[in-house]
Amino acid sequence: MPAPKTAISPTREVDYPEWYQQVIKAADLAENSSVRGCMVIKPWGYQLWENIQRALDDMFKATGHQNAYFPLFIPMSYLEKEAEHVEGFAKECAVVTHHRLEPNPDGGLRPAGKLEEPLIVRPTSETIIGATYAKWVQSYRDLPILINQWANVVRWEMRTRMFLRTAEFLWQEGHTVHATAAEAIAETEKMVDVYRDFAQDWMAMPVIVGSKTAKERFPGAVDTLSIEAMMQDRKALQAGTSHFLGQNFAKAQDIKFQSEKGGVEHAWTTSWGVSTRLVGALIMTHSDDDGLVLPPRLAPTHVVIQPIYKGDSRAEVMAEAQSLRDEIAAQSYAGAPVRVTIDDRDIRGGEKKWYHVKRGVPIRLEIGPKDIAAGTVFCGIRNQPKSFGISRSELVSTIGTKLETLQSELFAAALHLRESNTVTITNEADFRDFFSTQNEDKIHGGFAHAYFADEDALEPLLKELKVTIRCVPRGDNTTPGTCFLTGRPAEKKAVFAKAY
Amino acid sequence: MPAPKTAISPTREVDYPEWYQQVIKAADLAENSSVRGCMVIKPWGYQLWENIQRALDDMFKATGHQNAYFPLFIPMSYLEKEAEHVEGFAKECAVVTHHRLEPNPDGGLRPAGKLEEPLIVRPTSETIIGATYAKWVQSYRDLPILINQWANVVRWEMRTRMFLRTAEFLWQEGHTVHATAAEAIAETEKMVDVYRDFAQDWMAMPVIVGSKTAKERFPGAVDTLSIEAMMQDRKALQAGTSHFLGQNFAKAQDIKFQSEKGGVEHAWTTSWGVSTRLVGALIMTHSDDDGLVLPPRLAPTHVVIQPIYKGDSRAEVMAEAQSLRDEIAAQSYAGAPVRVTIDDRDIRGGEKKWYHVKRGVPIRLEIGPKDIAAGTVFCGIRNQPKSFGISRSELVSTIGTKLETLQSELFAAALHLRESNTVTITNEADFRDFFSTQNEDKIHGGFAHAYFADEDALEPLLKELKVTIRCVPRGDNTTPGTCFLTGRPAEKKAVFAKAY
Repeated sequence: MPAPKTAISPTREVDYPEWYQQVIKAADLAENSSVRGCMVIKPWGYQLWENIQRALDDMFKATGHQNAYFPLFIPMSYLEKEAEHVEGFAKECAVVTHHRLEPNPDGGLRPAGKLEEPLIVRPTSETIIGATYAKWVQSYRDLPILINQWANVVRWEMRTRMFLRTAEFLWQEGHTVHATAAEAIAETEKMVDVYRDFAQDWMAMPVIVGSKTAKERFPGAVDTLSIEAMMQDRKALQAGTSHFLGQNFAKAQDIKFQSEKGGVEHAWTTSWGVSTRLVGALIMTHSDDDGLVLPPRLAPTHVVIQPIYKGDSRAEVMAEAQSLRDEIAAQSYAGAPVRVTIDDRDIRGGEKKWYHVKRGVPIRLEIGPKDIAAGTVFCGIRNQPKSFGISRSELVSTIGTKLETLQSELFAAALHLRESNTVTITNEADFRDFFSTQNEDKIHGGFAHAYFADEDALEPLLKELKVTIRCVPRGDNTTPGTCFLTGRPAEKKAVFAKAY
Repeated sequence: MPAPKTAISPTREVDYPEWYQQVIKAADLAENSSVRGCMVIKPWGYQLWENIQRALDDMFKATGHQNAYFPLFIPMSYLEKEAEHVEGFAKECAVVTHHRLEPNPDGGLRPAGKLEEPLIVRPTSETIIGATYAKWVQSYRDLPILINQWANVVRWEMRTRMFLRTAEFLWQEGHTVHATAAEAIAETEKMVDVYRDFAQDWMAMPVIVGSKTAKERFPGAVDTLSIEAMMQDRKALQAGTSHFLGQNFAKAQDIKFQSEKGGVEHAWTTSWGVSTRLVGALIMTHSDDDGLVLPPRLAPTHVVIQPIYKGDSRAEVMAEAQSLRDEIAAQSYAGAPVRVTIDDRDIRGGEKKWYHVKRGVPIRLEIGPKDIAAGTVFCGIRNQPKSFGISRSELVSTIGTKLETLQSELFAAALHLRESNTVTITNEADFRDFFSTQNEDKIHGGFAHAYFADEDALEPLLKELKVTIRCVPRGDNTTPGTCFLTGRPAEKKAVFAKAY
């Protein structure tokens, strides 16, 4: 029996990485540009990012943060000030060395006007923002500083993949300054919680919150908290990080303040960020072999209406479609009007249906003369295999509920996938078995919770199996245990997984 | 008699350029960074930019445009394709030549990993976006493409001034593709009208819409439309431009399509943009010797309440301030709730008052025990010299009207300034007299409307007087006239002015 036809080829089962690229293409989210590693984010993909931005921005403002904007360029000498930081970023920096072009004697142009000091295109802005904060902070009265920036950053990655890892990407970076370690730690925790809430409530993507181990921390951080999600191929994806930077950057950049008691102290800083990578996470969490599946709270369009008519019936059907649109737009979902459009383009019905299925529109309605006569609408919900007829009035009155149900079903399905592919492991044999690389492109084991004594001792095994420590989950380390590898007493229990 | 004390020193009369810098500082809008020509936009300045963005973005969407995002970097060879374009931008390009840093044998770091082809940090994106459009456009059915991008761009200007001219700035750039010249011209006109409406309705800044002359056009454009405003020193500021690019870029980048008739044709393109320069325009249009004055429609905060109390009365006054805030927040202005905050910081009353005056908050309210007893509030409106007592209930019920009145008074005052400093000129002597450079930092003549026959013939005079042709106003050229300089017949009447 031939496999049922799917809109996306290959399917997830056959070739997950290629399926991912094909979903992006079919949903018209983005494409590679002619500039190495840089993508073009197309309107549908950008609308998703705008919705992500809007929701996060509201959450940042609700937690007392303000936006500001700092320079794209960082003087090379600034990067040098924090040793671990420069070590972490030096290998992937775009470097501006000249400030004009001049005619090349051999034709064409060449760089000219060499800069005295090269400028780095920001890979992250701790150093340039810290240099500014050093001027702003004089007294404890100037603290805390709670600022966020929406910006583009550049990391010259060798292997890129759309949304997940691109040379240029869009992100937000919060940078805060505090008078005490306790306040800075509380901020770090608060912001990782904002990311968790956003991932779960808006993206319908369950995440684990935890601390990175020393080797996996942000370069220069004392502690890095992250949210980790499981993709459908059972690999982990780090979807957001929040760093407690201690006094490391404050010392490197001389952020000092007169304390309430009178002495001069170095401040405590944090930074936290999420990026367009979230769009990749969204795609891989929910989409299926027919294309993108969007959680309603982030969908640019909640409902699309397709009028079905031939010749004479056009006027009647369009009038009905418009009144249906108006009624639906008067309904609310998640505290705002339902976003509904009519697709009246002159293309074949089947093509039109798949167009919206592939783009992940949550609810698709068809209405034709027979539906009008019967007082019904034909309704397709993106996570249900079959469309169904429904009375028009019932549809309108339940549209908000249907969107809510879809949102929570997507979350439940993602949570079920994670729970079904999460194990607790106590010995090396089980660990090896779980992360067996036999079907590398299809199945990646999942999440393994295991005690470990010493990160360094794990390294050969993790390298061999291409597994990483994702995080030490918060609140999951109350009782000590035994290291799954060495059998030694262990205090930390981590989540291990293959990862993006 | 000593001059009355002002919050900003020097005053506009004494030194306008320095006054501008001091307003930015006093209102906490921005500051210079340690990176040459790049500024830091501080939270109050960035909120203004966010409000500008939000309003414009809604207007772009209402006119059928969608947002997308294209790469920061442009391969050097792309710039070379359009001869005038590269000529216009080659002298001010930040050039990326390397993609990593390595330890320098003498200490520190040095650029490494030389790129095969240098990359330009976008000064504008016609070339990189056009290269993408060339792939998207196959048939007339793919047209029009109506896309906007919010982004940062870099132009390595030698003399910079915050908001008005910075090496890096934030802007939006619309890039559209059409099947016919007529459609592209209509788009160019439509978008300059959007800019005019935004400037006048939101910024309360009257503008003249017109065409640039050949020498003043965007490099590579067939026609450049602009909006031009008069600042308080009577200099002109170009606040937005909309370019009809003809087929110039389509030919350079091979944007071709199968036409409805069957042939293959080059497309017609437009581009249009405004930038953070608008914030500079806003400052210079309305602010006074006490600091920033904000048009209410763009003000981050409409009303600030300052509770005035000593010791015992705190609880009573705060309760009253909070209930006043809630009542005001329930009022609406320009179709949305009034934005009102309480400033309860523990600083001296006078300092607190000036803090908000300097930042341009439209309405400032003080409330203390005596006001509560009398059922009144003490009210300061930013464009009025004196504060006044008003019954609390009247204040609440008229708050929206007060904001509306302020918005229209600001527009009227700016229009009055322009009208009072605009002349029609028919001969060289009057032209020289009007643009006399005697008081260069204080008075710059204003706007002179005059017929001219030949742009080249004007050049020596314009250079001598440091005057430029701002634009040939739209709809102002119905009758031919006589060139003010040569006496020859002239078809075009332009606005001449000194300019930013």
